[in-house]
Amino acid sequence: MQTQTGKHVVIIGCGFGGLEAAKALHHADVNITLIDRSNHHLFQPLLYQVATAGLSAPAIAAPIRHLFRKQANVTTLLGDVVAIDAKAQTITLQSPGTADALVPFDHLIVAAGATHSYFGNDQWEPFAPGLKTLADAMELRKRILFAFEAAEHEPDPALREALLTFAVIGGGPTGVEMAGTMAEIARHTLPGEFRRINPASAKVLLVEGGMRVLQAMPPELSTQALKQLEKLGVKVMLGRKVTDISADAITFSTGEGAASQTHTVACKTVVWAAGVAASPLGRQLAQATGCEVDRAGRVAVDAHLNVPGFPRIWVIGDMASATSTHRGQVRTVPGVSPAAKQMGRCAAANIVRGIQGKAAQAFVYADYGNLATIGRNAAVVDLASPLGQFRFSGYFAWLFWLFAHIYFLIGFRNRFVVLLDWASAYATFARHARVVVGRAGRD
Amino acid sequence: MQTQTGKHVVIIGCGFGGLEAAKALHHADVNITLIDRSNHHLFQPLLYQVATAGLSAPAIAAPIRHLFRKQANVTTLLGDVVAIDAKAQTITLQSPGTADALVPFDHLIVAAGATHSYFGNDQWEPFAPGLKTLADAMELRKRILFAFEAAEHEPDPALREALLTFAVIGGGPTGVEMAGTMAEIARHTLPGEFRRINPASAKVLLVEGGMRVLQAMPPELSTQALKQLEKLGVKVMLGRKVTDISADAITFSTGEGAASQTHTVACKTVVWAAGVAASPLGRQLAQATGCEVDRAGRVAVDAHLNVPGFPRIWVIGDMASATSTHRGQVRTVPGVSPAAKQMGRCAAANIVRGIQGKAAQAFVYADYGNLATIGRNAAVVDLASPLGQFRFSGYFAWLFWLFAHIYFLIGFRNRFVVLLDWASAYATFARHARVVVGRAGRD
Repeated sequence: MQTQTGKHVVIIGCGFGGLEAAKALHHADVNITLIDRSNHHLFQPLLYQVATAGLSAPAIAAPIRHLFRKQANVTTLLGDVVAIDAKAQTITLQSPGTADALVPFDHLIVAAGATHSYFGNDQWEPFAPGLKTLADAMELRKRILFAFEAAEHEPDPALREALLTFAVIGGGPTGVEMAGTMAEIARHTLPGEFRRINPASAKVLLVEGGMRVLQAMPPELSTQALKQLEKLGVKVMLGRKVTDISADAITFSTGEGAASQTHTVACKTVVWAAGVAASPLGRQLAQATGCEVDRAGRVAVDAHLNVPGFPRIWVIGDMASATSTHRGQVRTVPGVSPAAKQMGRCAAANIVRGIQGKAAQAFVYADYGNLATIGRNAAVVDLASPLGQFRFSGYFAWLFWLFAHIYFLIGFRNRFVVLLDWASAYATFARHARVVVGRAGRD
Repeated sequence: MQTQTGKHVVIIGCGFGGLEAAKALHHADVNITLIDRSNHHLFQPLLYQVATAGLSAPAIAAPIRHLFRKQANVTTLLGDVVAIDAKAQTITLQSPGTADALVPFDHLIVAAGATHSYFGNDQWEPFAPGLKTLADAMELRKRILFAFEAAEHEPDPALREALLTFAVIGGGPTGVEMAGTMAEIARHTLPGEFRRINPASAKVLLVEGGMRVLQAMPPELSTQALKQLEKLGVKVMLGRKVTDISADAITFSTGEGAASQTHTVACKTVVWAAGVAASPLGRQLAQATGCEVDRAGRVAVDAHLNVPGFPRIWVIGDMASATSTHRGQVRTVPGVSPAAKQMGRCAAANIVRGIQGKAAQAFVYADYGNLATIGRNAAVVDLASPLGQFRFSGYFAWLFWLFAHIYFLIGFRNRFVVLLDWASAYATFARHARVVVGRAGRD
């Protein structure tokens, strides 16, 4: 597209932050190149439902170039950014089917998100996959459903019990959602369909190092969440630090020092929901620019969300370690989707202000609260509003969660289909997406 | 389940034949073990729509054990049958997560279906995948969509043209459906979403060795199909014999002997729809029992669908080379889903008759005709009815095809969602499942 300024904005990543930034530049006099490794924007808050066979993958994903078909200043490219040259203002793009390309930029928004982190124990990954992409969700769906299948075969009672033991590591929102839904599948979806095992006898363990689940929530909501998890049949194990994960078991320790004890539980299916780390592009930027990163690899950005000293490079979303000042208090911005969206809008606004010769504005995080779902009729909500703080849990929190997610989901068809699938699952306990693409045996 | 006879029926494969056989034994006094390599029954006639991003995978697949949850005499097992011992009456089952198991049977129905065949050129497979499973469909979806993505990057015009050339090998129903739908995607779904290429300039070639498409149909319908394909923008190349396929090109010859000429077309995406072969279990049965197989590996069954000399082993569906006598004429039974279903019912009925001490009945194929779709508003129908033969094509054939497929699709939810997706795609040309699970770059 012809622009008057001729300025070229490159956005790396089309998660919540990158998507919002590109949309906010709709009427800006710039050309935008929007790069993602996937061909779709993913509505990550519902990814656990794809993993647990409640939704099909396309229901929570929207093709990026379809989203921007009418925004003429956006060129979408599929590819992997493998290097950022902050001084020369170029990125290196690797794409399937074509040669590597050097893409120059005038402004760069780095929004490449986060991946899971095993805190230095990467050898656990094959036994305990995490949940960040559709491919992760498909892998978990396969492991969960195939464990029940294998149990139906297995003549050895000890092995059968290990196949029917599912461990979720990490009591944050993803861990709580996964554990709650897996318990629902075992207790409500599968019974009656097996002839040799009773799926309801499956154990779902939620292993958390700290002393409560959902630590980002107020303690009273953690207590509510714990009660709701136990009601759904999840065995919540607090104060357990995982020390080993293998194909057949998980090992964890309780207590400290001399009082510390080690336990091993035979378990064939493990879900990793314990740690996240920023995209490796964060550390790369740090090497190139001398900026700081925190332990999770997040870039310490300045008040305008820039890499310090690089006023044309923004880092937003889960890759940014940002602070926001609220009523004189400096607070760390949490790694949640509303924050990523707000950062995307702030970076876009600052690009426009820069082009117009205006000074950049500081990022201010508007906190609307926090919500997490646990399972059927079970959720906790911590709502910040001008009228005050509202905290509630149970059925109404669950309804609130449900409609909030439908509202934020992109695309009319997806909203409709997700609502339909949820209504049907609620009425029948069936989960329509219990379809594993890979097969047993040869392929 | 307790039975009076204690007879154990093993069914290998839950395609149309195996599914129908198990259902037909609902009230029979037998125990059934139903084995499949997938956890789902697949509605293969719509698989091309998953490959071309019109439907999501779960819309055309139903979890097998969910289908049989209320049929207490069925035990569903996920696994791969790697050997049949016809004399000892056992099969060897390989399953993920458990040790191999020897499963004895009193009656065996082999319904393991077909796979694609490259006629001795297996080296073509990586460049020209076929379409038999959901994994195949996902791979093709990825290749087709990613070719357009790569073309948007590619600076070299010749490479760009190769990326925008799609070849479908084989002019049977699958080839015609794939080519017609790919042309529709290029001409109607994608335009407006790319900034550097015009997706409508993509070439879709349908390469067929014979002199007409849809050779199982009457010649007048082949002519109609050809016209409709060309109207949709497919370049149909008849009388072309493929002699080589590589990552970058396909080569084919025209003419015979001295008049033969060779042509090479640069082309990055190839779909193999040219040949099928029965499951390798067919040849294995032949070795073990001395029965005959045809060139495609199909077992020559007797009039009762038994392996000759083995009245307790049935082979049905795409694995069987069967004949049927109709008004004194002996005809080969075609490899279509109605035939597989009828064979499933016949084998089940003969098992029950055998247990009751009655003589087996010969299989009689009831031919209701044939239909194939080509694309938007385009299909051909050859209907056999007591009132005579009806042949029609175009819009009404397409509507007929559409409702026939909705009718035969399993599950209310799937019918509803497929109808919804089709209505939406018809109105907007959008294809909601344009979501590739794998990503560019690292994974």
